[in-house]
Amino acid sequence: MTVKLLDISQIPAIKAEIDNKTKPLGSLGKIEDLALRLGLIYGSKNPKISEPTLYLCAGNHGITESGVSAYPSEVTAQMLLNFANGGAAINVLSEANGIHLEFVNAGVDMNDFDVDERFNVPISAGTKSFATHRAMTSDDCRAAVALGKERVLTRVQDGSNFTLLGEMGIGNSSSAAVITSLITGVELDHCVGRGTGLSDEMLRNKKEVLSRAISFHGEITDPMEILEVFGGLEIAALVGVLIASAENGLPILVDGFITTSAALIAAELNPNIRDYLIFSHVSLEPGHKFAVDHLLGDALLNLNLRLGEGSGAALAFPLVNGAAEILSKMATFQSASVSTSGES
Amino acid sequence: MTVKLLDISQIPAIKAEIDNKTKPLGSLGKIEDLALRLGLIYGSKNPKISEPTLYLCAGNHGITESGVSAYPSEVTAQMLLNFANGGAAINVLSEANGIHLEFVNAGVDMNDFDVDERFNVPISAGTKSFATHRAMTSDDCRAAVALGKERVLTRVQDGSNFTLLGEMGIGNSSSAAVITSLITGVELDHCVGRGTGLSDEMLRNKKEVLSRAISFHGEITDPMEILEVFGGLEIAALVGVLIASAENGLPILVDGFITTSAALIAAELNPNIRDYLIFSHVSLEPGHKFAVDHLLGDALLNLNLRLGEGSGAALAFPLVNGAAEILSKMATFQSASVSTSGES
Repeated sequence: MTVKLLDISQIPAIKAEIDNKTKPLGSLGKIEDLALRLGLIYGSKNPKISEPTLYLCAGNHGITESGVSAYPSEVTAQMLLNFANGGAAINVLSEANGIHLEFVNAGVDMNDFDVDERFNVPISAGTKSFATHRAMTSDDCRAAVALGKERVLTRVQDGSNFTLLGEMGIGNSSSAAVITSLITGVELDHCVGRGTGLSDEMLRNKKEVLSRAISFHGEITDPMEILEVFGGLEIAALVGVLIASAENGLPILVDGFITTSAALIAAELNPNIRDYLIFSHVSLEPGHKFAVDHLLGDALLNLNLRLGEGSGAALAFPLVNGAAEILSKMATFQSASVSTSGES
Repeated sequence: MTVKLLDISQIPAIKAEIDNKTKPLGSLGKIEDLALRLGLIYGSKNPKISEPTLYLCAGNHGITESGVSAYPSEVTAQMLLNFANGGAAINVLSEANGIHLEFVNAGVDMNDFDVDERFNVPISAGTKSFATHRAMTSDDCRAAVALGKERVLTRVQDGSNFTLLGEMGIGNSSSAAVITSLITGVELDHCVGRGTGLSDEMLRNKKEVLSRAISFHGEITDPMEILEVFGGLEIAALVGVLIASAENGLPILVDGFITTSAALIAAELNPNIRDYLIFSHVSLEPGHKFAVDHLLGDALLNLNLRLGEGSGAALAFPLVNGAAEILSKMATFQSASVSTSGES
């Protein structure tokens, strides 16, 4: 399948529809920009979001053995159990906002836990440390991408027409930092942050570990190779979610730094994907803004979030849904018999 | 009734509850600040928002005869009809986010329209122009405040424990500009904006009209007198909504420039009310930021909104509801058996 560029010849008609709604011209600000984008993606002046689905992709990271994270890697599996039991932030926020949570375990060994099979079909038990190895084999990387694609196709068959991205993987801000630096060209130091909460000393160590790892592997420019060498299995699955969603014409609400790094890879593989991206927020991770800027994004929220899981996407979803509803349901000046401004 | 200051001795216990949720410390940013505020207002670690109610207060403004607005004042009544028929932005956004819309017609003559009595019980048919008269009599001003209070009490009896503010009134950004300047001390010129969409020349005229009106009435410092002389009937009703909501211990989600000017008056009448205010957004009207700052507020959204009606409050509501749900429903590290950071 291919990803269709949006048909910008439709912009005047959709903008006219928005401008004719009973409100002063442009008075809903960025919500109107969103409404236009949704109208273009859905090819309709009456968009209706149905079965919005947050793909919560998870994976473990070998690089954690180098002390790059404040939490031990066991927490990834523990948090998957927490997701299964409905106790995590993303469970609460998804339920509050009517979002279906789809778990995509790409790389977490859950054999020690009593969870259903949705949580227990990883490609492998996690990546190797990219300090000393390529993180994944090409086969595993492709399998993780395929897993993400497959889940989207299943949900599309179930009537989902809207994608949200989420992730869980202790250590994955290290992968995201390297991916962001290599793809955007922004110096690594500016892309490395405190993740779940590093001290100054641990942050210094993280920067050194990542810098050495980049030197160790030498110059890599191919996006799939960047993903294989530095990625997480969950980031690879997210790349699959991005590709399949865009191929099927679905808007994609991006979460924070890690999901945006997946979007960077996906947009290298197919630049048309950028047309389908909506950015929920700018996180506190310093590299995130560079990644969003590289994708020409304009984030909706700025609430100092840095949790991941898709929490920022879930929080921003009602804004996007509101924009779709504005476009499809608001009355026009004519239909409501409201006088227009003397100005316009 | 009185407005109770929040019991800040509860902060450590509520903060401990938030910090013990299964997420890195502070990783939900401003959502955690909101959760703390809601915990304090409700006096509970398990807050549950029920029957959230947006009080859409409407009134006409005599000052429109001085050419301070891009739309004719007939539009206020036409928009009330649009609200009655469900076609306005606030109808769509309230429905999308599960918010009850309560119409409070404080000053719009609806006799020419076929609407039910909820839309047709104004205190009067609108204010006199404050360019040449006091906008309201003391009696009308007090009656409008009482109307707002009364509606809150009815909704509280119906189970509502959360207030959102909204307004409709062609010309009311003129009232808000004068109120904001007089109460915050910020120069009038910095508080006057384009409202629904003035040209440069009309903006210049608006500044002149308002400046002359302030001189005409001489120095006024009493907040109720500021409201009577420069206010709108809908702003007076909003003051009533603010007072009754705070007296009943309800969080108040403020909308844009006009509802914030009502909050300025209410906070002058009783500074304790500030503890109950949550600011949904910073609008494009230049005076709004000064008003929010004066109330020590920190707005959630910055989406270039300038519609009014309560649209910003309705858009921000899911963030507030999400914060309440995070506090009451998320698992703790202990309950979910998740390892804590080595750091904290």
